[in-house]
Amino acid sequence: MTKRVIDYLKQNRSETYDRLHQFLKIPSISTDPNHQSDIKEAAQFVQSYLTDIGLDQVEIQETGGHPLVYAEHLKAEGAPTVLIYGHYDVQPVDPLELWETPPFEPTEKQGRLYARGASDDKGQVFMHLAVLEAFMKTEGSLPINVKVCIEGEEEIGSEHLYDVLEEKKEQFDADFAIISDSGMVANDQPTILYGLKGFTGLEVTLEGPENDLHSGLYGGAIKNPLMAMSQLLASMKSEDEVVLVDHFYDEVEPLTPEELKLIEQAPSEDYQTTTGVKETVSEAGFSASEHTMGRPTLEVNGLFGGYQGEGTKTIIPSTATAKLTCRLVPGQDPETIQNLLVDHIEKHTPVGVTPVIKREPLSAKAYKVDPNHELIQKAKDSYTKAFNKEAVFVRMGGSIPVVEWIDSIFDIPVILFGFGTPDDRLHSPNESFPLANFDRGVVALVDYYASLASNS
Amino acid sequence: MTKRVIDYLKQNRSETYDRLHQFLKIPSISTDPNHQSDIKEAAQFVQSYLTDIGLDQVEIQETGGHPLVYAEHLKAEGAPTVLIYGHYDVQPVDPLELWETPPFEPTEKQGRLYARGASDDKGQVFMHLAVLEAFMKTEGSLPINVKVCIEGEEEIGSEHLYDVLEEKKEQFDADFAIISDSGMVANDQPTILYGLKGFTGLEVTLEGPENDLHSGLYGGAIKNPLMAMSQLLASMKSEDEVVLVDHFYDEVEPLTPEELKLIEQAPSEDYQTTTGVKETVSEAGFSASEHTMGRPTLEVNGLFGGYQGEGTKTIIPSTATAKLTCRLVPGQDPETIQNLLVDHIEKHTPVGVTPVIKREPLSAKAYKVDPNHELIQKAKDSYTKAFNKEAVFVRMGGSIPVVEWIDSIFDIPVILFGFGTPDDRLHSPNESFPLANFDRGVVALVDYYASLASNS
Repeated sequence: MTKRVIDYLKQNRSETYDRLHQFLKIPSISTDPNHQSDIKEAAQFVQSYLTDIGLDQVEIQETGGHPLVYAEHLKAEGAPTVLIYGHYDVQPVDPLELWETPPFEPTEKQGRLYARGASDDKGQVFMHLAVLEAFMKTEGSLPINVKVCIEGEEEIGSEHLYDVLEEKKEQFDADFAIISDSGMVANDQPTILYGLKGFTGLEVTLEGPENDLHSGLYGGAIKNPLMAMSQLLASMKSEDEVVLVDHFYDEVEPLTPEELKLIEQAPSEDYQTTTGVKETVSEAGFSASEHTMGRPTLEVNGLFGGYQGEGTKTIIPSTATAKLTCRLVPGQDPETIQNLLVDHIEKHTPVGVTPVIKREPLSAKAYKVDPNHELIQKAKDSYTKAFNKEAVFVRMGGSIPVVEWIDSIFDIPVILFGFGTPDDRLHSPNESFPLANFDRGVVALVDYYASLASNS
Repeated sequence: MTKRVIDYLKQNRSETYDRLHQFLKIPSISTDPNHQSDIKEAAQFVQSYLTDIGLDQVEIQETGGHPLVYAEHLKAEGAPTVLIYGHYDVQPVDPLELWETPPFEPTEKQGRLYARGASDDKGQVFMHLAVLEAFMKTEGSLPINVKVCIEGEEEIGSEHLYDVLEEKKEQFDADFAIISDSGMVANDQPTILYGLKGFTGLEVTLEGPENDLHSGLYGGAIKNPLMAMSQLLASMKSEDEVVLVDHFYDEVEPLTPEELKLIEQAPSEDYQTTTGVKETVSEAGFSASEHTMGRPTLEVNGLFGGYQGEGTKTIIPSTATAKLTCRLVPGQDPETIQNLLVDHIEKHTPVGVTPVIKREPLSAKAYKVDPNHELIQKAKDSYTKAFNKEAVFVRMGGSIPVVEWIDSIFDIPVILFGFGTPDDRLHSPNESFPLANFDRGVVALVDYYASLASNS
């Protein structure tokens, strides 16, 4: 059975990629209100494809924000039900001038497909849709029961999804979920994620004088908001990457000996090659792999104030602003951590400036599942077979809020079956996805679904 | 004699202001190459006015950069020769959206004239030109010998002026210089500056990864350039405003008891009213007046990196950049201080990022003159008389590089006879100049020049 399905995928490869290109062309940037109509178009694209595939109850659901696309096919008696989750929205593209090919003109170059969303997440979502199409067009049925949920707000925190899943519990309930929105820990290294980090953040502005001031006349009387911000941020993290915010680590679940072993088994990234950085820096006492995978972080994502043009402008600026986010590990509560950050800022803001805080409404707890679960072991087997290399289990530094919500609402395992690579440049200019991973990945998925069928 | 001259100024007030408006309309922004033709137009305006006034050898001198306007009138036998220095170039105007009236559409409102350059320096330059016109049109002569030097690069550090003054020493030599490009220490408080601070600076960029990185995947391995910059800047200055750069204070000439008394006599600025800030912060052990006037400073004028738009973007940015400037006091050498900053940066840049430094080519030593000098005492008398209030002597926190150069090339006293006020908003949006100071100030200048005539 799987041979026929896989042959269909091979024969229709060209049409599949054409269709994927169409999907990638839509600039469905969720954070930017100017792309509202593109969001709508992307949702309609998915709806249209699911309808062509032949699934049931294909519908665009309004959420209060960007719409979500749903479909189902519940005809495999005795087989488990999977909730396939993905997202059709993408990250912003700035700085635009650094893209070598336009972000919404998909371009194939040296085995990679370049476009915003090629890896995160349209390319990977499409793999699932292509697999469903292949089963339906060859077998006229699916080996297991399937519910599809493809939303449009993941890049902005899936703001409305939690309520949708909560209110429509019956409609979305399943035995397990599968998400392809992550990556291999190294090129050609099949990777199943068994953990994700949580997330919280805020923006803080330090307000100084009402106007920019002449630095000669006022230097020595007026606290400089940029210096104050530097002093404040420096008080939050040591040079050996320990977060200094009181109680930040109190609830952190430490990495177990078994986890430390899994981390060791996974190849570590060659950061000099992938990022150009000569020396990594991690929390005192932890390796780069241990910190990125299993320890919490505090990062400054943006910082600005004063004069940014060419040359000199001798001012004490009126304000300084910093955007901070934290990645959390199991045990840490996002609201608690956000409160700790606020407390620290209020306590450590230097004299002479006033902090104004904008809490980031998006947040997520960390997620962890037992890698020995049968469903996860089978995913590992299919992945290993299709890529001809033993798959590894890792915990990822990124966050996918929906995973933790699925866990808490439905209490089901989430299989993080991702096909991206470290070179994909997520969230950056020149994002891409390797076509070889698409081609081998759909084979892995076919094999996986087939292995779960009630007659297998 | 002075009565006739002062009457002329009164009668021609309207024409004088019309002409000043024309001068202010020219957007002679020296730091911006897009305003090259405006620079030329401003120089021609000055040349034209000096010619109308009836001075001799009126000429536009090429300097290698923006041109300088020169004129002279050397017919007062036995009287001293003054070099009147000013500048026709102005600061940039950003942020433009904060201006209530357009920066190059001079607007009179509630006794103030609003325009970029109204105070710094066109309004004050114009006072001298109006005074010269008044003498020439009523007396047909000037009471003392006059050389006029009005340049176009002051806001960008007078880059070519030093060489011009050095090479043309004979042409520019005088017995003393007068500069009106500063302000009163408080509204309606006549102020003669007897000292100015020096200046040096640099721009430092910390380079991290080649591209912005996903903060979830790379946080914990890659040093964040914004956090590194915060840690670096925080290492340069304590929260009680002491500069921590090694040897920074080594050569500082301390404030003398006499100077501390002069500082005490001058009214201190009401910072809450003028800036909105509730608490001032000064170097431990010094008051705001003592620090702004007589202690060196280190300021961050601009700082930027990472995401600056609306909402969240979860990246570790590729770079962070800070613009730093120092104001220096007598004893400190600008080149030495700049080297100390570079040394500190090289020593304290955290592991994982690389500093790239752009030294600011503009610099100046601090300047100080004896307030008891006869020429300065006479200036004080004229100022006191015209404004009906005892003038005070202060050292200013700002820098005017040409003052120190005039001192070192010609070894002559420089009279810093400024008419600005703390509300003028130099270097900021909504710069303005009080018309009352223009009107009373030209009277002070007439009285001053007359008091120096050989028959007085």
